[in-house]
Amino acid sequence: MTRIIFLLSHLLCFSVIAQAQTTPSKTVLEYVNPFIGTSKMGHTFPGAMAPFGMVQLSPQTNFQPLFKNGKYNPETYEYCAGYQHKDTTIIGFSHTNFSGTGHADLGDILMMPTVGDLNLNPLPTANNPTGFYSTFTHEKESASPGYYQVDLDTYGIKAELTASDRVGFHQYTFPESNNSHIILDLVYNIYNYDAKNVWTSIRVENDSTITGYRQTNGWARDRKVFFAITFSKPFKSYGHKKYDQVAYNGFYRKFNEFENFPEMAGHNLRAYFNFDTKASEKIQVKCALSSVSTAGALLNLKTEIPHWDFQKTKIETQEKWKKELSKIEVETISEADKTTFYTALYHTMLSPIIYEDVNGQYRGLDQNIHTSNGFTNYTIFSLWDTYRALHPLFNLMQPSRNNDMIKSMLAHHDQSVHHMLPIWSHYANENWCMIGYHATSVIADAMAKHVGDFDTNHALTAAINTANTNYFDGLGDYKTYHYVPEDKSSASVSKTLEYAYNDWCIAQMAKQINDTKTEGTFTNRSKNYEHVYDASIGFMRPKLSDGTFKTDFDPLDTHGQGFIEGNAWNYSLYVPHAIEHMIDLRGGKEKFTQHLDSLFTMTLDDKYIEKNEDITRDGIIGNYVHGNEPSHHVPYLYNWTNAPYKTQERVRHILNTMYGPTVEGLCGNDDAGQMSAWYIFSSLGFYPVLPGSQNYAIGSPLVKEATLHFENNKTLKIIVKQQSKKHIYISKVSLNGKVIKDFTLSHDDLIQGGELIFEMSKRPKTH
Amino acid sequence: MTRIIFLLSHLLCFSVIAQAQTTPSKTVLEYVNPFIGTSKMGHTFPGAMAPFGMVQLSPQTNFQPLFKNGKYNPETYEYCAGYQHKDTTIIGFSHTNFSGTGHADLGDILMMPTVGDLNLNPLPTANNPTGFYSTFTHEKESASPGYYQVDLDTYGIKAELTASDRVGFHQYTFPESNNSHIILDLVYNIYNYDAKNVWTSIRVENDSTITGYRQTNGWARDRKVFFAITFSKPFKSYGHKKYDQVAYNGFYRKFNEFENFPEMAGHNLRAYFNFDTKASEKIQVKCALSSVSTAGALLNLKTEIPHWDFQKTKIETQEKWKKELSKIEVETISEADKTTFYTALYHTMLSPIIYEDVNGQYRGLDQNIHTSNGFTNYTIFSLWDTYRALHPLFNLMQPSRNNDMIKSMLAHHDQSVHHMLPIWSHYANENWCMIGYHATSVIADAMAKHVGDFDTNHALTAAINTANTNYFDGLGDYKTYHYVPEDKSSASVSKTLEYAYNDWCIAQMAKQINDTKTEGTFTNRSKNYEHVYDASIGFMRPKLSDGTFKTDFDPLDTHGQGFIEGNAWNYSLYVPHAIEHMIDLRGGKEKFTQHLDSLFTMTLDDKYIEKNEDITRDGIIGNYVHGNEPSHHVPYLYNWTNAPYKTQERVRHILNTMYGPTVEGLCGNDDAGQMSAWYIFSSLGFYPVLPGSQNYAIGSPLVKEATLHFENNKTLKIIVKQQSKKHIYISKVSLNGKVIKDFTLSHDDLIQGGELIFEMSKRPKTH
Repeated sequence: MTRIIFLLSHLLCFSVIAQAQTTPSKTVLEYVNPFIGTSKMGHTFPGAMAPFGMVQLSPQTNFQPLFKNGKYNPETYEYCAGYQHKDTTIIGFSHTNFSGTGHADLGDILMMPTVGDLNLNPLPTANNPTGFYSTFTHEKESASPGYYQVDLDTYGIKAELTASDRVGFHQYTFPESNNSHIILDLVYNIYNYDAKNVWTSIRVENDSTITGYRQTNGWARDRKVFFAITFSKPFKSYGHKKYDQVAYNGFYRKFNEFENFPEMAGHNLRAYFNFDTKASEKIQVKCALSSVSTAGALLNLKTEIPHWDFQKTKIETQEKWKKELSKIEVETISEADKTTFYTALYHTMLSPIIYEDVNGQYRGLDQNIHTSNGFTNYTIFSLWDTYRALHPLFNLMQPSRNNDMIKSMLAHHDQSVHHMLPIWSHYANENWCMIGYHATSVIADAMAKHVGDFDTNHALTAAINTANTNYFDGLGDYKTYHYVPEDKSSASVSKTLEYAYNDWCIAQMAKQINDTKTEGTFTNRSKNYEHVYDASIGFMRPKLSDGTFKTDFDPLDTHGQGFIEGNAWNYSLYVPHAIEHMIDLRGGKEKFTQHLDSLFTMTLDDKYIEKNEDITRDGIIGNYVHGNEPSHHVPYLYNWTNAPYKTQERVRHILNTMYGPTVEGLCGNDDAGQMSAWYIFSSLGFYPVLPGSQNYAIGSPLVKEATLHFENNKTLKIIVKQQSKKHIYISKVSLNGKVIKDFTLSHDDLIQGGELIFEMSKRPKTH
Repeated sequence: MTRIIFLLSHLLCFSVIAQAQTTPSKTVLEYVNPFIGTSKMGHTFPGAMAPFGMVQLSPQTNFQPLFKNGKYNPETYEYCAGYQHKDTTIIGFSHTNFSGTGHADLGDILMMPTVGDLNLNPLPTANNPTGFYSTFTHEKESASPGYYQVDLDTYGIKAELTASDRVGFHQYTFPESNNSHIILDLVYNIYNYDAKNVWTSIRVENDSTITGYRQTNGWARDRKVFFAITFSKPFKSYGHKKYDQVAYNGFYRKFNEFENFPEMAGHNLRAYFNFDTKASEKIQVKCALSSVSTAGALLNLKTEIPHWDFQKTKIETQEKWKKELSKIEVETISEADKTTFYTALYHTMLSPIIYEDVNGQYRGLDQNIHTSNGFTNYTIFSLWDTYRALHPLFNLMQPSRNNDMIKSMLAHHDQSVHHMLPIWSHYANENWCMIGYHATSVIADAMAKHVGDFDTNHALTAAINTANTNYFDGLGDYKTYHYVPEDKSSASVSKTLEYAYNDWCIAQMAKQINDTKTEGTFTNRSKNYEHVYDASIGFMRPKLSDGTFKTDFDPLDTHGQGFIEGNAWNYSLYVPHAIEHMIDLRGGKEKFTQHLDSLFTMTLDDKYIEKNEDITRDGIIGNYVHGNEPSHHVPYLYNWTNAPYKTQERVRHILNTMYGPTVEGLCGNDDAGQMSAWYIFSSLGFYPVLPGSQNYAIGSPLVKEATLHFENNKTLKIIVKQQSKKHIYISKVSLNGKVIKDFTLSHDDLIQGGELIFEMSKRPKTH
């Protein structure tokens, strides 16, 4: 899910980013610029994390309230990952952040070092003219995988961050002061920042260790994050303030609850810890997270980082990143492309995240504590986005993790009271965001590609259960009518099309394990897209429960026309499992080519753009919207016509215009890595148009050369001959000496390694 | 802690109670009248529970809001146990209730069967003129240990309740209706009924099983109760309503969240389950609790009551009650006394309660999940009340349980961030209610009496830690000044006296394990009572930090004079560990006897009575207040003078006037069983004036005969010769043939069994 805002000016910020300097002997880490996408609506964050790590430790800049003067404040949406590159103030460092999502949550356990009179308000308010925020500049800020540092100019504090899988590691270099503080702000949340807490609790275990938890009611309805924090130096005193009306009176008679009292709890707490500091004295803080308990967090803390060597943790995490990023070695036409590539690759490894303690315990969807036996549990499944290219990329480059992710999805199903696979899930919650049941695609794709050792029978049962949850989002009607009637459920065409594709995925799963009955049932269901095609106008069109099509239909409009995040022009092309039949329905290849040409070249009237925040003029090519996923396969559809060269043109155009090496280098939310995964695949010259099948469609590679190191220890070398900015057309492709004629590669062939050779040309091959 | 209201009319309600009928062949169960104390401020409940059971399933009658027109509503305090005998309406049956406590919480998981149009408001409100409450009459209500039944007249439903240790078992006999409901009200709380929820959650696991939890912020600051409920008949449909502003939007797009949607959550939920019922059709409901998780509740449910045989569970629980109650067999002068006695004995077994799942898991004070290895974990420790007689009674009659309770207290210490033993704890929370650290008394008493196999070294360490928590309630100042200065901490004299006694207890513990250094330290501390004695006026008196006594001192006033729940007249007598020295300080036995006489006979001015709710004219004897614990040992102090016969007079008078067999039969809160334990001991003829020692002081037995069956398989027969209402004086006492001359019995002697023979007379032995 993406709301896109693309800027023509996306190259402007290049100079302020330390990592973007070109040097001859750069390591792969130096080609990652974590600031890419931190401007406008990229929704990425620059902070420190390990690959797929449970902690995402990142600065939070000047946030916007969700409501201003009683009205929704659209600016709050810019802060989905807590950071906006345009800002000049930091209010602290949070331990959880989504990368590139289309909606927001998290921002847990905000810490901020300050000096001088204690101030517990993050930002100036009507009642308090100051805040504990600090100003900062990008000149004194830098980031690379696993490491972030910034000078907090207001206080003369240098803040450095790194992280292991489950522990955030802070290093603050203080000035001399007898009035230094570290604030622990449990009020702060991303999105609706002070109105999401259900409960917060802090225990001061001793003079340098604290534990606690926070329970929030946000996008995730009932989310619990436990933490354990240690300081490298004992605090000299501490205290807290409560920001809520509910008072617990039992304490007041016995104690001054608010100063040096080791047990704090309430809806909204901010605590502070006071220190004397010498000039340039470093105070380090380690903060471990757990979904299980404070005991779990303490275990994670002691197990993962038993020492106080910040540099050691930083190096270990950066080594992990080197290992992951080096799985694909590329040479590109320009250094800028290489930065864009490796940052995209980096962005594909920020979620899903590990979601279990070091002993395998995690909080399940049923809020009970489970132990992952035989797998590592993951969370953050933005599946409507990521089934398309991110999970297929994992099947290619991270099959073990994808296997674990599927096992995590099956555990989710088993813990679900609905007996459903995840839709959009994170932190033991189902957020129900977007449509379809695309976990079926992830599983079918793994099965088609022989990835993993998960229980395929159980997976099929889980998929069938999911596909038969009649109360889910028009699904009962879909089964009754063979389409979702628009008068029963909005976005009915999008749902019908995606359910049909998901049903095809289930049929493929059944086929793999020789369940012919289920295969037949779901193959039949997969044809339901036919019921919403209106041949009279050549578009998919919302149909009512009486069998008639919706009147007053505008195929250019995205809203109220039976679609979601896409109009009929784009969404009508979404039948990935039956492209040839779709083309036939539309009158054959020539007419279809013309339709595609029109899509990319037409001029969209302003009225279709201005009325919502999802589409702006800069984010589209004609009427093609790259930032909204339903079209991601569309540039590749020319391969099914007589003009595959147009796929090559379009793909290359998108690679060059919708991505870039700057803070504005994402044409909208990264969508939990899906946008970046599209870039990785397309840069390498192929794309999984139909997850659940073996096939990749060939586009136009951006790289000059690439080496893919697979988990099976085989290596695929991609060689792009005559590559240049103008040589965007393919004259020949061969895999291990065999010429590919149909612009299709199979996964089983690729995964055997060898050489994939593209020969490029500046002229299209039009015959 | 007790606020007492004693009524002269306490015999009036006799006729309405089914159990109070006298029949020749009554079982011990028939001598228990669970309605005793349910009127006015007894704070007992009539519902069903197993001895020391985790579930207290009891009717909740018309409650009072905590605030009326913005002001505190004193009537709400009547509802500490959810039930008031004067009421004519029931709003449902809750699964947790305190028995006799001086403050309120709980009332979890209210269920109510109804018929007709669904109504989710318990009581009429401004917006809704009706409620789901039912009228009832005491004629169609009865209760006995482990069983309660009532006719819900509004609906023609008969409701029956029983319970195992962890499972409440409901049996509702419905009329014929296609509109029958069972309401599950998670909004309702005892005390501040709709403002305590932090979060509530319900999962409909299948058509007859639901799970969920409730988190509250009440007296316990952060309390979590998980539940699992099964219905004997599948519901035909269900739904819920939310009573809060916080909306989770994710669900609305996909579902009608409010009807037949299996996942409900919010701050305040009421759910309903619909049934068709035939005439006289029984629908049964089992509800298991857990402090751990819904998985724990399901395990408790399946393990404890795997069947649907209501009668079987009722009989099993009543057999448990028979076994516990039969440990003391008594013959009394009147049948009424026998009812009073067995009901008092019953009331001593309603708390502390078992607090762990069947697998030993429980939520600890640190909110982490622990497993009780080698003991059964208990909660609800109202220690300021119960160290006096309840725990000593357990040491006599329930030593195994008291051993488990002490181990539970040690676990509490280990989980406490303060490293303190419990003060007033329940459900993984420390409520900090009242003063002192009387867990030390419970432990010292067990050690003095050789009860249990707990780790005595660990116990001593825990006690020392507790006694050195400087920030606790004036304790640091107590250590510095050797008394609590009134200008530093209110109720300073009460605190000084009780700390001194607790310190003596710690010294006794140290002595038992030959830690002479600790014994010396705490023996010194135990003398601190001397610092607050003002010989010039003959009273304990608040002292300021400058060493001077408070001026403007009124020894009759309970408020603002350095005491809590007692005035200087009563509290000055609180030096249980140095009674002889206290008597010396006061000028010797004769002067002391006169003081005691004055206490019992003086006329207290109205101004000392009317200004607070803790003392009313009817609850006192002269200036002696039986309902407030600090005086509980006072009637026995004559034993240390030359007039022990006055103890006999006073004790017998209190037994006869402050207790009775009716709904108003408690002269104030039962104080978690302490008032009842006083009655049991005193009825048997002796009382533990000094817990932590071997000694009992002899009073005047009320029974004619008693047989105590100890856990060591020994039996003590108490024979009271010439017993009658007028023969209240003791002419001779002998234990196993040995005449007792000093009115003192030792525990070690009693526990060996044999015969304790009292010879009574109507004339006092005055020489």
